[in-house]
Amino acid sequence: MTNPWTLSQKSPDRRHADHRGSEVRLYGLNAVQAVFATRPQAIRKLYLTEARIPHCKALLAWCVKHRIGYRVVTDADLNRLAASAHHEGVVADVLRTEPLTLSDWLNTLPAGPAAALWLDGVGNPHNFGAILRAAAHFGVMAVLLPHTSPLTLSGAAARVAEGGAENVPLVRVSGCTEGIGPLHAAGFTLVATVIHDGASVFTAELPKRLIYVMGAENEGMNADLTAACDLRLSIPGTGDVESLNVAAATAVFLAEWRRRL
Amino acid sequence: MTNPWTLSQKSPDRRHADHRGSEVRLYGLNAVQAVFATRPQAIRKLYLTEARIPHCKALLAWCVKHRIGYRVVTDADLNRLAASAHHEGVVADVLRTEPLTLSDWLNTLPAGPAAALWLDGVGNPHNFGAILRAAAHFGVMAVLLPHTSPLTLSGAAARVAEGGAENVPLVRVSGCTEGIGPLHAAGFTLVATVIHDGASVFTAELPKRLIYVMGAENEGMNADLTAACDLRLSIPGTGDVESLNVAAATAVFLAEWRRRL
Repeated sequence: MTNPWTLSQKSPDRRHADHRGSEVRLYGLNAVQAVFATRPQAIRKLYLTEARIPHCKALLAWCVKHRIGYRVVTDADLNRLAASAHHEGVVADVLRTEPLTLSDWLNTLPAGPAAALWLDGVGNPHNFGAILRAAAHFGVMAVLLPHTSPLTLSGAAARVAEGGAENVPLVRVSGCTEGIGPLHAAGFTLVATVIHDGASVFTAELPKRLIYVMGAENEGMNADLTAACDLRLSIPGTGDVESLNVAAATAVFLAEWRRRL
Repeated sequence: MTNPWTLSQKSPDRRHADHRGSEVRLYGLNAVQAVFATRPQAIRKLYLTEARIPHCKALLAWCVKHRIGYRVVTDADLNRLAASAHHEGVVADVLRTEPLTLSDWLNTLPAGPAAALWLDGVGNPHNFGAILRAAAHFGVMAVLLPHTSPLTLSGAAARVAEGGAENVPLVRVSGCTEGIGPLHAAGFTLVATVIHDGASVFTAELPKRLIYVMGAENEGMNADLTAACDLRLSIPGTGDVESLNVAAATAVFLAEWRRRL
């Protein structure tokens, strides 16, 4: 079995380069358990504390049966392996799921009501994780990421998503012009979520198939993309703060969609 | 003017002890600007980068007029002063607002619709900040903190609140039995927000005066407190993740209250 100290001498960035993006180091109990529940064959290595063994019996049995390396280590080892103290006693190296293309996603999408998110410039991995958690809770069919998006599923995002990352497919879109046509053709309405001057999401009629486009944390939505959307919606508030956090806003917009189903 | 290097040799904890809790070091542009907008006389010291000067002209003019010490420093100085890289170019030492007592708050509360939050065990300062931001957005009248709560307004929470901390009063409550009677007497319904088995917040009748009781991040709500509440509400979802993050759930519960006003 590999000695974790050998592995831990490589920085997370260096490891990433060594694996050419094919593996990602996940941490957090729900993040790791969600991979085990949905695609156990993706698990390549497992590290956990002794205290976590009772919560991971089925996972450990799988590792034994399929000769996946696992190692019982200290909390300090996991801090180093995860490069974070938020590992909750478990770290795993897993195969990365590559994002779908837009046409691959649309080809498999059933008819009927469907919501998806388009993250236009969201850059913070914690917001990304919180958005994935809300997306999984409300049954979002995909999270669309423009090619310019810096987001990929990191260990931090997956931990904050609490397992939600395994339930919502990521889809890469090339840009405005390439993405919007096929989405319209598939019956989707694009909704720009704006801080000011949109119609109230509480009273507007919501299409059954919609894409909420969420803007960047500070800059908000790209002006060209906003102009290309079919609707502009806002969440009414006091104005005492400029806006909600993007993950909180996403949860409110998705809740309104789900409430009307 | 004080040399920031002298100040920065004290750890944040040590400084806190020196000031006996009377000052708090805030950072982030909106957090500091919100103090300036609501209680400028609370500002005791200001540090900012040269690049931030154009965004803080009125604040600097106030400092000059009222002989408040300010200092233009480097980004690295602010990293050290804030003990965080998320200072956005501005740090301020400000007088802390002491939480209200429950009776003081209730005595000044107008009649009519009112929502408040009771944070039962929320411990993460980022969640606390995100909750304050949502509370300010939706016009919450107070955030109630039990005496057992570890939460106080830290620089990290205020930064994440993006100014919301200045718009929502904090109220200390002694415990279940002491708090619930006066709240009922003031016409409030206490709503336990539970992950499973509550009535749907989307369809339940919501009282015009309500307290949403939000549980701890991992443990959820205290069982005795849940039993003492008048209603139990949940946010319907797929079950693909166990729950929403507490700050996202707070935003959804508050949005439903505001939507029905």
